[in-house]
Amino acid sequence: MNTVFVTGAAGFIGSNLVDRLLSTGSSVVGWDNFSTGQSEFLESALTNPRFRLIRGDMLDRSALALAIQGSLHVFHLAANADVRFGTQDPSRDLEQNTVCTHNLLEAMRKNGIRDLTFSSTGSVYGDAVKIPTPEDHPYPIQTSLYGASKSAAEGFIQAYCEGFDFNATIFRFVSILGERYTHGHVLDFYKQLLENPGKLRILGDGNQRKSYLYVQDCVEAMVQVAATKSYGLRTYNLGTAEHCQVLDSVRWICEHLRVQPELEFSGGDRGWVGDSPFIYLDTTRIRETGWAPKLGIQEALLKTLRWLESNQWVLEKR
Amino acid sequence: MNTVFVTGAAGFIGSNLVDRLLSTGSSVVGWDNFSTGQSEFLESALTNPRFRLIRGDMLDRSALALAIQGSLHVFHLAANADVRFGTQDPSRDLEQNTVCTHNLLEAMRKNGIRDLTFSSTGSVYGDAVKIPTPEDHPYPIQTSLYGASKSAAEGFIQAYCEGFDFNATIFRFVSILGERYTHGHVLDFYKQLLENPGKLRILGDGNQRKSYLYVQDCVEAMVQVAATKSYGLRTYNLGTAEHCQVLDSVRWICEHLRVQPELEFSGGDRGWVGDSPFIYLDTTRIRETGWAPKLGIQEALLKTLRWLESNQWVLEKR
Repeated sequence: MNTVFVTGAAGFIGSNLVDRLLSTGSSVVGWDNFSTGQSEFLESALTNPRFRLIRGDMLDRSALALAIQGSLHVFHLAANADVRFGTQDPSRDLEQNTVCTHNLLEAMRKNGIRDLTFSSTGSVYGDAVKIPTPEDHPYPIQTSLYGASKSAAEGFIQAYCEGFDFNATIFRFVSILGERYTHGHVLDFYKQLLENPGKLRILGDGNQRKSYLYVQDCVEAMVQVAATKSYGLRTYNLGTAEHCQVLDSVRWICEHLRVQPELEFSGGDRGWVGDSPFIYLDTTRIRETGWAPKLGIQEALLKTLRWLESNQWVLEKR
Repeated sequence: MNTVFVTGAAGFIGSNLVDRLLSTGSSVVGWDNFSTGQSEFLESALTNPRFRLIRGDMLDRSALALAIQGSLHVFHLAANADVRFGTQDPSRDLEQNTVCTHNLLEAMRKNGIRDLTFSSTGSVYGDAVKIPTPEDHPYPIQTSLYGASKSAAEGFIQAYCEGFDFNATIFRFVSILGERYTHGHVLDFYKQLLENPGKLRILGDGNQRKSYLYVQDCVEAMVQVAATKSYGLRTYNLGTAEHCQVLDSVRWICEHLRVQPELEFSGGDRGWVGDSPFIYLDTTRIRETGWAPKLGIQEALLKTLRWLESNQWVLEKR
């Protein structure tokens, strides 16, 4: 890979990807609007002469088209990544995830760039009727604006593969854990327990089952697959062959922090409107490429916790 | 039904729906930007005191929110309905079909209106792997910007059902034929044969298999299903239990017009980029509601031809 364009370069996954790409000799142009990205995550990258950072918003089509010039491959990580708050601002997912992806496709098309790796989500399956959920799961019914907006982005990418000979790889991620983690339940729980080790409020009934993947395993899959050039469209679920309950997660966190809080549940089988009580993806297809995760869920969670412990500034950011 | 809001009210299907709703005593507010709608189609409706027409564009959110006030049910027909020209203006489908649908959902939500009937399309299945294609076909891969934009709109409607307690019925139409037909292959062929009865240019190899439905049967299904109130989401394929080849269509048209043109094929198994060589929907689910089409494909096609013969002004419109 020569010059690579990474959107959401200052984000959790994006910044880890940037570091990984730089370590293998690629030149990287990073793009971020710093709505949730953190300049601290790019401290190391910014010392590398092969890295260039552009602060820009993907709704600004002309700036985007200019910035992308000369790149050969695009990793599109920029997104409103928080599935929980869709109904509070019902236009944000459409704009940030669907319209911005379309803006990117147009910027690529106008510059003759046709190779794309896209970060989608297991949330596109809604309340899956098949678990573990394969990529060809029955036509899903969206349950969140986040899932709807990512599924919509996938559809436009697919149409660009057919109509404009794009080559795209779509990854449907489970929740990602690890260094530079800035939102989600591990941060929420950790923050609560720092403030009051005697009590932990949990959304839902604690029995929700979820899957998680370590960020370095996630980045490795993207880089490995992008290195094997193919034509047209590829779609891969990305996760571990495991799932855990929220209560497992609570136990691991409490053991690590050596606290025994009283648990308080908001109740119901879902954490929020549109939450899926069971997310577990069939990852046979990505494993057939030779990729395998190095860490399991518990190890990834402990890595996350240790990183939060040494980077408590993140807790103040949201 | 009390006051009903119909978007795309001056269009092919929309205007037939307006007439049908008025005939059953509903009050109707029609909305159209007249980009492809024809005021001639509303001549009869405009003489009815229960009909009010508003000229407006769905990208104008405040006008839309104002116009929709007081309506109890929305039929959303407005769209860029021409699947063929997506790649010529790659932003149009996103704007007209996805963003405008989201604008409508927001206008409804802000006015406390939660009952919606939506015109989607069999094109959302892309190149279907199951034919006849059921509603729970495997997660499709979009092949056209039109299909991508309609599938995206469906996803946002689904998320509004989950997040905001909307009640929505999504209809995935095959191609519709009948009175007020203004674009598509029957019009193209008729126009060509009027100009030169000795020659007919056909996109693809003529073997493409498609399904068609008569517009009055389509409108009847929408009205019947909307009259049976339900909660949450319903999705129905809508078509006849038949399909035909482009060459059947050519034969019926030529026999009716008593011409024997030389046929010239553009070649390939598709009419255009993103065209699907075989569209045939499984309509078991809609038939189980009691609805059945009154006309078959050939009868619907002949109705279309006869209407075009008495309304040749339509030929000059595009």
